[in-house]
Amino acid sequence: MSSGTYFPQNIIIKKRDGGALTQDEIGFFARGVVNGQFADYQATALLMAIFWRGMTPQETAWLTDAMMRSGDVIDLRDLPGAKVDKHSTGGVGDKVSLILAPLAAACGITVPMMSGRGLGHTGGTLDKLEAIPGFRVMLDVPEFRAILQKVGMAMIGQTPQVVPADRKLYSLRDVTGTVECIPLICASIMSKKLAEGIDSLVLDVKFGQGAFMKKKEDALTLARAMVAVGQAAGKPVWAQLTAMNQPLGRCAGHTTEVIESIECLKGRGPDDLMEVTFALTGHMLVLGGAAKDMAEARTKMDTAIANGRALQKFHEMCVAQGGDPRVIEDYSILPTANKKIEVRARGADASGFVSEVDALRCGHAIMALGGGRAAVTDKVDHAVGIADLIKIGEPVAPGTLLCTLHVNDDAKGTRAEALVREAVKFTAAAPTLEPLVQELIS
Amino acid sequence: MSSGTYFPQNIIIKKRDGGALTQDEIGFFARGVVNGQFADYQATALLMAIFWRGMTPQETAWLTDAMMRSGDVIDLRDLPGAKVDKHSTGGVGDKVSLILAPLAAACGITVPMMSGRGLGHTGGTLDKLEAIPGFRVMLDVPEFRAILQKVGMAMIGQTPQVVPADRKLYSLRDVTGTVECIPLICASIMSKKLAEGIDSLVLDVKFGQGAFMKKKEDALTLARAMVAVGQAAGKPVWAQLTAMNQPLGRCAGHTTEVIESIECLKGRGPDDLMEVTFALTGHMLVLGGAAKDMAEARTKMDTAIANGRALQKFHEMCVAQGGDPRVIEDYSILPTANKKIEVRARGADASGFVSEVDALRCGHAIMALGGGRAAVTDKVDHAVGIADLIKIGEPVAPGTLLCTLHVNDDAKGTRAEALVREAVKFTAAAPTLEPLVQELIS
Repeated sequence: MSSGTYFPQNIIIKKRDGGALTQDEIGFFARGVVNGQFADYQATALLMAIFWRGMTPQETAWLTDAMMRSGDVIDLRDLPGAKVDKHSTGGVGDKVSLILAPLAAACGITVPMMSGRGLGHTGGTLDKLEAIPGFRVMLDVPEFRAILQKVGMAMIGQTPQVVPADRKLYSLRDVTGTVECIPLICASIMSKKLAEGIDSLVLDVKFGQGAFMKKKEDALTLARAMVAVGQAAGKPVWAQLTAMNQPLGRCAGHTTEVIESIECLKGRGPDDLMEVTFALTGHMLVLGGAAKDMAEARTKMDTAIANGRALQKFHEMCVAQGGDPRVIEDYSILPTANKKIEVRARGADASGFVSEVDALRCGHAIMALGGGRAAVTDKVDHAVGIADLIKIGEPVAPGTLLCTLHVNDDAKGTRAEALVREAVKFTAAAPTLEPLVQELIS
Repeated sequence: MSSGTYFPQNIIIKKRDGGALTQDEIGFFARGVVNGQFADYQATALLMAIFWRGMTPQETAWLTDAMMRSGDVIDLRDLPGAKVDKHSTGGVGDKVSLILAPLAAACGITVPMMSGRGLGHTGGTLDKLEAIPGFRVMLDVPEFRAILQKVGMAMIGQTPQVVPADRKLYSLRDVTGTVECIPLICASIMSKKLAEGIDSLVLDVKFGQGAFMKKKEDALTLARAMVAVGQAAGKPVWAQLTAMNQPLGRCAGHTTEVIESIECLKGRGPDDLMEVTFALTGHMLVLGGAAKDMAEARTKMDTAIANGRALQKFHEMCVAQGGDPRVIEDYSILPTANKKIEVRARGADASGFVSEVDALRCGHAIMALGGGRAAVTDKVDHAVGIADLIKIGEPVAPGTLLCTLHVNDDAKGTRAEALVREAVKFTAAAPTLEPLVQELIS
């Protein structure tokens, strides 16, 4: 494992010529991007060569492992029960984590969740949590561990000590056209999740026009690669393929999504959002041994919602992480926009059924309102967003409410309204609905 | 041509996906690597994408032009006569420039030659010239121009103001596995030559085991690409394909090559070296209008050597560039090694004919003696080298001199002798000799 015998250019040339790298070469790379032995301009040449030539499942597993070991690996073995997390490839309106984590914890699973911030049209879990007054997401590992012990769940941001190689590589990939590469995506996601100290993991791999992966086959390839990496690391990983052609649920933004999540925990969630949440949480319960099958898992989840235990976990998390738990009963405590604009169907074609709610355009509407980030340093406006969003297949006539925009600036509101109007399309005949929750790769 | 509208990652992604870049995009890249708008780590990702996807002849011509314009372009139009230069892809023992430049100048051509230093097993023209006491190669453009005006030739190093984009890109390519890429090689060579203010150019593109291009077809591809770039720039370029399976001439090193070059100008050069020199210089005379065809060119060159005019030009260049012209008559003025080792054929198989003199191993022998550079910052020992080298096809018997090593250190001499012994191979029957000077691409 001596790194003195490796030269970055030899590793680059080997991959450039289509060769498979050894574990030592990959280890030298992952350590080198952090300690400087692999210069940035050499790392990006190798990333492009990997984009071109790909990586074998074995190389991907080694890269994941080496990236994971580039920083602290959290050890939660002394905590009781199964440590299971969920990761989603993301989508507009996807607030599943906020419901799933307390729900799984209420059913006996320990959920050590490290999440990211939003960038571009997709929101981030940390930003949503920060809509809750006082909520702290940047906790150190001892506090994370203490909350997990006490509450059975915690939702925090990645600490700087965890997987520094990914932070470095992602920032380079982002500006060098090397993002859309399955082995690199796989290693980035899996190295961070495996560093959390989990026993097993459920992945939500989305596909469709609103997802990072447009085609189901690409989502399937990524899902299989991540399941294989989990296998190589000795951690069971199940990957759920989920269609993402419209925003999930009826709300997008920060305050609006927190409200919708709490409504779900109160048993009043929209069907599509609950379907995905129950599927993913159910897999966590089965993987973690809290339920013997999905039917038993569903019974337990229904009970945890009905008896308030899931909502109670959300309350406990707020208290533990400094957030004001009164938001659960009083949504006006959350940042609130100055103005609500009701966007209603109009014009000759506004009749029949909704055939399309373009998630990307809805995401751009959030951006236009000031609720997103174009650059990592941008501040987000938690108050703005979309609520009451109409869903594909719902009937429409002139005057039907398409959504309510929560707006803090009239000009931004006008721009967002135009984007939402572009997003929603109509058809005379009721459209066939694609199943939301599809294959499970395990 | 506004560069504000380009983003490096978009240009990288376009090339990554196999697209052809526009002139503006290529210009933004070439300027950007110098002014920092294209970060090093983005440049190397693009270089790897170019290595993968290639460049069209049009893209290569635009890249050459943009690189040339990244710095000063010398204008020699006010100087009388045709300005013609020669460039070689390089090889062990190749001292053609030292003979060709004075010979062409003696025949009426103006030769504005900017050369490089040696790296690895191949020697550099500048290093050889610096074996001459006092010889200055780092002249500024006004002095270069003044010497060209007075002598009709000058041999200098590239000034920092000429093609800074190439200096930057080459240093990045060198450490990122993106050297062996025809469009990039072509743009690197041609941008530097076109910035010299030439009217036309002769290229010596070598192939064979001692050359950068091992296969003739690769050399042909490179030759054609460079001729096309010259055409696009409105400058006639002829490319001579030359076999490079053994060192050129009988000497390799610095002092030894200077002596051999002067011997050539005195009419006592070895056949192979003179054949290549006459071919390349002849093309310069025809391209520059100093001879109507190769036959007339040959007559003029023979005359210039016989009447001492070519040697006189070498003398004038030495005087103009600060070198001691007495070296022409007294080789002992040059740096001289402590010891000469005669390497003689021995052993059972040392009879018959020489079948192989491996140029790469001979180059490594020079390196072993201290006469080469492993890194650009290394100092070279001008005194050491190889002389009296036997040639392929010459008869051999036990005791036949294979070469004389000029040595300053016994241990290094022993190592160099072993390398030379590995380089020279024998065969019972006389081998068929491959023609040295082959196709001309024009």
